[in-house]
Amino acid sequence: MDSGNVAWILASSALVCMMIPALALFYGGMVGSRRILNMMMMCFGGASLVAVLWALFGYSMAFGNSVGGLGLIGDVTEFPGMGQLMAEDKEASIPVILFAAFQLFFACVTTALVAGAAAGRMKFGAWMVFAGIWATIVYFPIAHWVFAFNSADGSTVGGWIANGIKAIDFAGGTAVHMNAGAAALALALVLGKSSGWPKVEHAKPHSRPLVLVGAGLLWVGWFGFNAGSALSAGHSASVVFLNTAVAASAGLLAWALVERFRHGAATSMGAASGLISALVAITPACGSVSPLGAVAIGAIAGAVCSLAIELKFRLGFDDSLDVVGVHLVGGILGTLLIGLFATDAAPNGVSGLFYGGGFELLGVQALATVTVLAYSFGITWILAKILDKTIGLRIKPEDEMRGIDLAAHSELAYLTDEDPVDLGSPQRV
Amino acid sequence: MDSGNVAWILASSALVCMMIPALALFYGGMVGSRRILNMMMMCFGGASLVAVLWALFGYSMAFGNSVGGLGLIGDVTEFPGMGQLMAEDKEASIPVILFAAFQLFFACVTTALVAGAAAGRMKFGAWMVFAGIWATIVYFPIAHWVFAFNSADGSTVGGWIANGIKAIDFAGGTAVHMNAGAAALALALVLGKSSGWPKVEHAKPHSRPLVLVGAGLLWVGWFGFNAGSALSAGHSASVVFLNTAVAASAGLLAWALVERFRHGAATSMGAASGLISALVAITPACGSVSPLGAVAIGAIAGAVCSLAIELKFRLGFDDSLDVVGVHLVGGILGTLLIGLFATDAAPNGVSGLFYGGGFELLGVQALATVTVLAYSFGITWILAKILDKTIGLRIKPEDEMRGIDLAAHSELAYLTDEDPVDLGSPQRV
Amino acid sequence: MDSGNVAWILASSALVCMMIPALALFYGGMVGSRRILNMMMMCFGGASLVAVLWALFGYSMAFGNSVGGLGLIGDVTEFPGMGQLMAEDKEASIPVILFAAFQLFFACVTTALVAGAAAGRMKFGAWMVFAGIWATIVYFPIAHWVFAFNSADGSTVGGWIANGIKAIDFAGGTAVHMNAGAAALALALVLGKSSGWPKVEHAKPHSRPLVLVGAGLLWVGWFGFNAGSALSAGHSASVVFLNTAVAASAGLLAWALVERFRHGAATSMGAASGLISALVAITPACGSVSPLGAVAIGAIAGAVCSLAIELKFRLGFDDSLDVVGVHLVGGILGTLLIGLFATDAAPNGVSGLFYGGGFELLGVQALATVTVLAYSFGITWILAKILDKTIGLRIKPEDEMRGIDLAAHSELAYLTDEDPVDLGSPQRV
Repeated sequence: MDSGNVAWILASSALVCMMIPALALFYGGMVGSRRILNMMMMCFGGASLVAVLWALFGYSMAFGNSVGGLGLIGDVTEFPGMGQLMAEDKEASIPVILFAAFQLFFACVTTALVAGAAAGRMKFGAWMVFAGIWATIVYFPIAHWVFAFNSADGSTVGGWIANGIKAIDFAGGTAVHMNAGAAALALALVLGKSSGWPKVEHAKPHSRPLVLVGAGLLWVGWFGFNAGSALSAGHSASVVFLNTAVAASAGLLAWALVERFRHGAATSMGAASGLISALVAITPACGSVSPLGAVAIGAIAGAVCSLAIELKFRLGFDDSLDVVGVHLVGGILGTLLIGLFATDAAPNGVSGLFYGGGFELLGVQALATVTVLAYSFGITWILAKILDKTIGLRIKPEDEMRGIDLAAHSELAYLTDEDPVDLGSPQRV
Repeated sequence: MDSGNVAWILASSALVCMMIPALALFYGGMVGSRRILNMMMMCFGGASLVAVLWALFGYSMAFGNSVGGLGLIGDVTEFPGMGQLMAEDKEASIPVILFAAFQLFFACVTTALVAGAAAGRMKFGAWMVFAGIWATIVYFPIAHWVFAFNSADGSTVGGWIANGIKAIDFAGGTAVHMNAGAAALALALVLGKSSGWPKVEHAKPHSRPLVLVGAGLLWVGWFGFNAGSALSAGHSASVVFLNTAVAASAGLLAWALVERFRHGAATSMGAASGLISALVAITPACGSVSPLGAVAIGAIAGAVCSLAIELKFRLGFDDSLDVVGVHLVGGILGTLLIGLFATDAAPNGVSGLFYGGGFELLGVQALATVTVLAYSFGITWILAKILDKTIGLRIKPEDEMRGIDLAAHSELAYLTDEDPVDLGSPQRV
Repeated sequence: MDSGNVAWILASSALVCMMIPALALFYGGMVGSRRILNMMMMCFGGASLVAVLWALFGYSMAFGNSVGGLGLIGDVTEFPGMGQLMAEDKEASIPVILFAAFQLFFACVTTALVAGAAAGRMKFGAWMVFAGIWATIVYFPIAHWVFAFNSADGSTVGGWIANGIKAIDFAGGTAVHMNAGAAALALALVLGKSSGWPKVEHAKPHSRPLVLVGAGLLWVGWFGFNAGSALSAGHSASVVFLNTAVAASAGLLAWALVERFRHGAATSMGAASGLISALVAITPACGSVSPLGAVAIGAIAGAVCSLAIELKFRLGFDDSLDVVGVHLVGGILGTLLIGLFATDAAPNGVSGLFYGGGFELLGVQALATVTVLAYSFGITWILAKILDKTIGLRIKPEDEMRGIDLAAHSELAYLTDEDPVDLGSPQRV
């Protein structure tokens, strides 16, 4: 065991955990002031439920030995309750239980991402049921496909995308972002639009500073996500780190430029979204490209996603917080652009089309993309439909008007009705 | 010296430092908008004062050689100003000065926790005097009892709880949380209730989003607190990390469920409090239990503390921010539940009642609990009484009505009275 | 390569990245509610642009082989696009590309710091042009002077301050803080005062809690900045960490005390500023002094900067957010006080005047100070003047009145005009 590697994955896990409050800020600022608590509760509540399920059986489903060696799903009976992981394996580069903790937060964050499509109109209980089942039948299997590698000695078989077609997804362009984006689309379609959409006054962002701060903290957490996925503290993690930094920056600039030229002003919402779009796109690609490739992917993602978020108005689905335009589109971009920008000088050691690598890699990436999209969208749609017909997904229209915070949580975010009192002398500074 | 261990304790120390602004957010959101600055200043000011005292003599009192070998207090003359710690000891696993920095923030955070009992009505100067003396006569000694281990060669004698009765407290259930909770109770009793309590309009939470973000960032920082307490980057820290993650999640869910069934809705305040309650309870236990044990302890803490916070209304003390219900009760739960849930498969290698370990461990844990509670409550009560009789603790009633921010700091948190101007065209996005 | 060192610099780089959103909070809270988005966008936008320039040519200019061996500027053609840094060098203690990522954020943060002088009145496009050119002609050269050390084998020549006069600047008192402060002064002078200054209602801090949280998160990030600058996870980083912790605390206390005695109350703005002033001052000195020396430097910085920020009213320049009073003055203090408080027991191993070291060190520090100040102020002033005469720096007076957020970004930070609806039953908690 290498204590330096352990130190970095411990720190990375804490950084990925920070993405939960960061996402709650990012999403929470984007909704109205009578919807923010529900939005934050969907993030925290969904993440918490998934964390407990992960300990109970999720880790086994994602990283247990593949059932029948098919690469479709891990053996759920392998590590029930994770008790076995407490045994120390001095041969491992990092403790298995640490890997399980790191990946736990991937499951939490991915589930929380989906919540952005359901802002302001979904029963909280129904969300929690959805989150638990969704993680179980969508996230855990896809994580197995993408993140579970065969063990070196062949004793443990992993997922088909990682080992069969060997698509490249360094930290989760498919398993995390496309997956969350496709699920968000399905959920938004089944859930239906907010009353009055797209002219919903209290669906508008009530605090853009929270959005920017959330985006900034997501950026910080993303270094754990991406560079932690190297699972060691060495050269690979370092390249990934730099690529993540410059891609994000290029994405912010690209979105801001597109806005400036199309609409006359670069907005804070655009800057935050550009940063996140680029982070999404570099997530699968961060180990395969050069710093300039990372800048290119970040810039492309920022520009394309700034156009993609307008789709919802044309196609008429209420993806309230642009999970589709940012995570689905950004994830697809990043996964496919590996096929173009990958260079064998990068840690993954594979070349894409622009570096003499031919079309094969692009094809493999496309296959992974299509399969993850189809599975995630399809199963999520069915799940959402079943829940809608049984327990019901929507809150009552009048509750939507009052604001879901009051209806679902008996709370208002901000208390502004303090009794007026004589404030005495004006403040000094 | 192992650079991986050093890397993790450096990172952990930064994470624990982050608990100071996180706590300021958590507490600050829970009070009214004319009390938040004072609340945040109590956190930052108290922490800063204790940090300087730690450098001057606190580290010596906590980790100096035990005076007379009694395990009651370290030799205050041993490391004055910490200059000696600058000498490099290549034999140490991590530099002593790094251990001192890590523990510095434990002292800061514990002191800041106490502030929650005094929201909105304590003179700021009196708080600072209280904080400095409290750290000196309550925290530093108890930290010595619990955290100071005898050196391997016997040259340095540590505290009686760590070495004498060998109670298990991995990261501070007794020294940090029970201690802060008992002190908060004593301070709240001496200080008295807010004018008009429990119907104080401006004592209500003015920003629940801040509370949730604060709780989320506390969670992140807690990984430094707990997994950093392994003092190395290896298997122990990894188990502790996972246990901390799942316990917190279970606590949030348990509190939310209790609220849902008792009151019809899961609130954001409950979710935040459930998360923190469970983190408190897992703090002493994180190295002694399995992941399922951690889930159990977290869930028990979330459920029990959700009931415990109602005590203040029955018993009539104004523990404004539930330091007693969360930290005192959560700390007791965690410390005692070790006696039930400890398994020798966990890093601490000790078995509790449920794992065939008999009643002895439970007895030892109870002894540590009772002693810390009695000492902390008793000394704090006397200290608060003396200060109340001499310099006075309470601000004037009229200042309480105007809001302590204006009275004690000549400031208002939010400026909302900007001159109305024609805003021109409405914003685009 | 030592994985522990790599782990710590990875974590440190993430911590320094966190200073970007933290600074956006710190600065954003200090301005009015119709200026905050622009302030945050200046931080995020400027930082993003500089990150991309760093990848393109900035790293080469700062850390390339010195042109002509003069120590003035690195060879811009050496690492274009950073592609070469992807090659693994197993001899290096940490990967060069990781060092480049760590230093990338230094460039970002320094540029963002300058924005504080231009709050509420600078065209956003002009700021972005300024930021890009300023980083190129001011920051990258000064970073070369101060941070580029000659390679051990002499094959690469670094900067004149680091290698020629051997001034001590552990983490950027000159290159970062004085530099940003001097540039802020020049920019503020060329830009001119806000309309109506110093009585500008919407230039007042609109959210002091954001300021405090921002300061707290800056503190956390600063541990990456300072202790990361040791470039290894060992004894030096540990000493630096502790010094950074106690200096910051002492600075907060000193500012609060001065305020208490001069004005009758310790404010939250003062506490936040005291913390940051001390962090600025300890930045160059953190590797040269004892913990008590750090307390002294922090306290001196807190006290002196609390007086220095009043200069702008006497001298009549609108340094809106006190970049001069805090970063320029704090940076000078820290750099010069090394000449007094340095002790050879500290990692840098040099003695100042108080430890028997004579006046020589003080002279060297003064020379570095004067040169950096003169270069930064002079070049920035010329750059700002040229931009003002060509593209123009100021927004229109009527846009300043409406608020720059609306004028430059077509946005308002907060949405408060939601339609009133019947809120139904009052909230429960």
